[in-house]
Amino acid sequence: MSADKKNKIKPRLPRGLEDRGPEELRALRVMTDAIRGVYERYGFEAVETPAIEYTDALGKFLPDSDRPNEGVFSFQDDDEQWMSLRYDLTAPLARYVAANFDSLPKPYRSYRFGNVFRNEKPGPGRFRQFLQFDADTVGSATVAADAEMCMMATDTLEALGIARGDYVIKVNNRKVLDGVMDAANIANEQRLTVLRAIDKLDRLGIEGVKQLLGTGRKDESGDFTKGAGLDAAGIEAITKFVSAKGKGNRETVDNIKKNVRLSPAGEEGIEELITISKLVAASGYEDRVLVDPSVVRGLEYYTGPVYEAELTFESKDEKGNPVRFGSVGGGGRYDGLIARFRGEAVPATGFSIGVSRLMAALKALKKIDDKPEFGPVVVTIFDKDRVADYQAMVKELRLANIRAELYLGNPKNFGNQLKYADRRNSPVAVIQGGDELANGEVQIKDLIEGKKAAEAIASNTEWRASRPAQFSVSREKLVETVKEVLSRHGIH
Amino acid sequence: MSADKKNKIKPRLPRGLEDRGPEELRALRVMTDAIRGVYERYGFEAVETPAIEYTDALGKFLPDSDRPNEGVFSFQDDDEQWMSLRYDLTAPLARYVAANFDSLPKPYRSYRFGNVFRNEKPGPGRFRQFLQFDADTVGSATVAADAEMCMMATDTLEALGIARGDYVIKVNNRKVLDGVMDAANIANEQRLTVLRAIDKLDRLGIEGVKQLLGTGRKDESGDFTKGAGLDAAGIEAITKFVSAKGKGNRETVDNIKKNVRLSPAGEEGIEELITISKLVAASGYEDRVLVDPSVVRGLEYYTGPVYEAELTFESKDEKGNPVRFGSVGGGGRYDGLIARFRGEAVPATGFSIGVSRLMAALKALKKIDDKPEFGPVVVTIFDKDRVADYQAMVKELRLANIRAELYLGNPKNFGNQLKYADRRNSPVAVIQGGDELANGEVQIKDLIEGKKAAEAIASNTEWRASRPAQFSVSREKLVETVKEVLSRHGIH
Repeated sequence: MSADKKNKIKPRLPRGLEDRGPEELRALRVMTDAIRGVYERYGFEAVETPAIEYTDALGKFLPDSDRPNEGVFSFQDDDEQWMSLRYDLTAPLARYVAANFDSLPKPYRSYRFGNVFRNEKPGPGRFRQFLQFDADTVGSATVAADAEMCMMATDTLEALGIARGDYVIKVNNRKVLDGVMDAANIANEQRLTVLRAIDKLDRLGIEGVKQLLGTGRKDESGDFTKGAGLDAAGIEAITKFVSAKGKGNRETVDNIKKNVRLSPAGEEGIEELITISKLVAASGYEDRVLVDPSVVRGLEYYTGPVYEAELTFESKDEKGNPVRFGSVGGGGRYDGLIARFRGEAVPATGFSIGVSRLMAALKALKKIDDKPEFGPVVVTIFDKDRVADYQAMVKELRLANIRAELYLGNPKNFGNQLKYADRRNSPVAVIQGGDELANGEVQIKDLIEGKKAAEAIASNTEWRASRPAQFSVSREKLVETVKEVLSRHGIH
Repeated sequence: MSADKKNKIKPRLPRGLEDRGPEELRALRVMTDAIRGVYERYGFEAVETPAIEYTDALGKFLPDSDRPNEGVFSFQDDDEQWMSLRYDLTAPLARYVAANFDSLPKPYRSYRFGNVFRNEKPGPGRFRQFLQFDADTVGSATVAADAEMCMMATDTLEALGIARGDYVIKVNNRKVLDGVMDAANIANEQRLTVLRAIDKLDRLGIEGVKQLLGTGRKDESGDFTKGAGLDAAGIEAITKFVSAKGKGNRETVDNIKKNVRLSPAGEEGIEELITISKLVAASGYEDRVLVDPSVVRGLEYYTGPVYEAELTFESKDEKGNPVRFGSVGGGGRYDGLIARFRGEAVPATGFSIGVSRLMAALKALKKIDDKPEFGPVVVTIFDKDRVADYQAMVKELRLANIRAELYLGNPKNFGNQLKYADRRNSPVAVIQGGDELANGEVQIKDLIEGKKAAEAIASNTEWRASRPAQFSVSREKLVETVKEVLSRHGIH
């Protein structure tokens, strides 16, 4: 604990980690309350698991791992067993369900919110700790559960203020993807590369995807990405499939049936997509939940329907450049994940919201209030021997449920106290000097009114205060008067 | 992802980590909302830091470290720099303040809530991940800031429903502790052991403490704890000090002044305690904020006033044995912690609530509602070809803001559907078979009324239903009728 200037420690944060201030935390609370409200209305109940799990219990299902330990932060317990920070909320849920299998109702419908950690190369908008908000239905084999997840996703986005038309929930099916690759005789070792190529359709367009399906692709910077090595027939089969999207779900499904060769498992997947389409149509969601053959989802554990919530509106960044937010969440069916513990398949499907990315989008849409709130009333210290008196004023204000504080810095320079109140965006400062004390009074300084006056003077406009920005009242009227000033400015 | 029964992974959680269900999470939300309310009223603003920090930025200030890496979970980044999970919320705050020093208002008053991690031997009530809720005032050298922390602690406990008289905030001062040891010529290398001995006064009584101050102590199990090795004079000096507690703050301070030899720094500490006593008395807290010479606080970074929130009532555990909850939070002044980064002292003081322990106490006091809530309305599936119709009913209910869900398990056995509704504590089940469909009706099953009837039959008591537990209404009246049944049972 040395104060030696030479041995100072740098107050650094590792890259990909971030602090959050009051505006962001308030926005986060408003947002998570809205999501929780929808999930509860859908009948899901809360459950949370710890951040640390045994590494083998989590398994390794992360895409694109660019670190030797596969994107996960891991460390050894004192008995040398490996533990890891959770990289998502689905793997821990699988462990939880397996551990409590007999005592849970089935289907088990639950939601959870929390931090997940990725030991990846951080980049813009890519963090090593971020928040997810998940809902999962475990023990339900019917795709009605998947359809429900998609509908819940739309209700959630709308509850957050995103207008119909500004988002879409895209649905696909891993069985169909596999069915196309089966029918086209694509080898197992090529398949992950094929899926990753499809996943880039949005960004690279169909020609870019074709290159990645074939020998490979050189990007603008000259970097070469090796392709899946498919022959012309393979490339055509995949291309036909990912181009099958029609105007509505019926047309998309018809296009796939007509133009794409599928294995029997793939045909089963198509039937599931048809059932999902019917269910969402019966509840009036057919304009927002759309079958889309280009959806892949990165995680390796999906076994059936996969879905993705995408924001479709364009926004501008600080420099005026257009920004698309794209995917803000997704999920799918993972019938094998709990089987790792149980030794028998347990059907399950879930949806996960990327909370930080969604919050960025809501900010851009001005759907989240990120203006700083007014700070507390500041009771200043005029006479440093009378701190107890000032403290008693603060107590009275707080008892009346008014945010209030005593100035706790060095009181010598009175101007600093008012500067502090300004820094805190305080609406009111309270002052009691010797004269006021002698008269049994306090000075109330209306800082909001005062700022208006200052602005008028600065801009040379004519201005007539409707109320004085500073005035005296009797000491007993302190609370009453502060309340009046606050309510005049709409602060409760 | 093998479903091989022989290679099953055990769904274990490392010791000292735990899952939380819906009742606990709801209680936690009620509790943290109340704490946040008080902290906001005191003028503190929210800030949160990530769970991972550079190890050198956190420093090592943990007490009783029984692990080689000093109680902290650590791992290396890909550039080989060491990172750790935060072990409290104070060390990360110091890093945050140092990193943002020029842009923050001073004093900087903030609060934060989050998980902290200790790589310690877990035990009953001792977890390796737990929640803390902290408030800190940085940049204030006056002990008015410490007095405020103590008063805020009492307001927080009362906001949570803990009655006056069931808790006490104990205050001491590290300068006084040091002053006693200075005056008694106790060597630096003995001091940590002396502090730990004093810390055990509550548990071991004064005789046990004397043994730990001297050669050592053998406990009931026969284990020997080596003592601080003080001579008789040293033991007497410490004993006099820790026994100085009087009836009120004035008496305690007088006892210390009269009976205890102090160095000049210790005298300064006493003056600080006197100032704190005066401030809390001026605001009417003198019956709940009490000077107590036995308070030490484990963390090494404290430099001045230290305080501890202690619950004083007794409760019974499940077996009827008396339980005392003891400390549920505490804190103190740590003027040196930010100096590690800045190279100059930055005064700071803070209070931390141990959220899990406080929640256990609130449960024992029945101040927290941990009854399971009613589950969602369950729409059953009578005819599996009409899932879309049932789904549409669920949608209507949800649109009316009623928690509702479609039964998503295998619908073959209808009894299982009702068992599921019972498991979920559902208030209402909705049924539509072929007859109802033909008549344009649905069956409403009032599960709460039904349970009362079943209980009456089982206990052979006479019972006359005021309302039928199951009845038909026209399909259009579904939402209206379910609403009526719910409001009859007080569910909104």
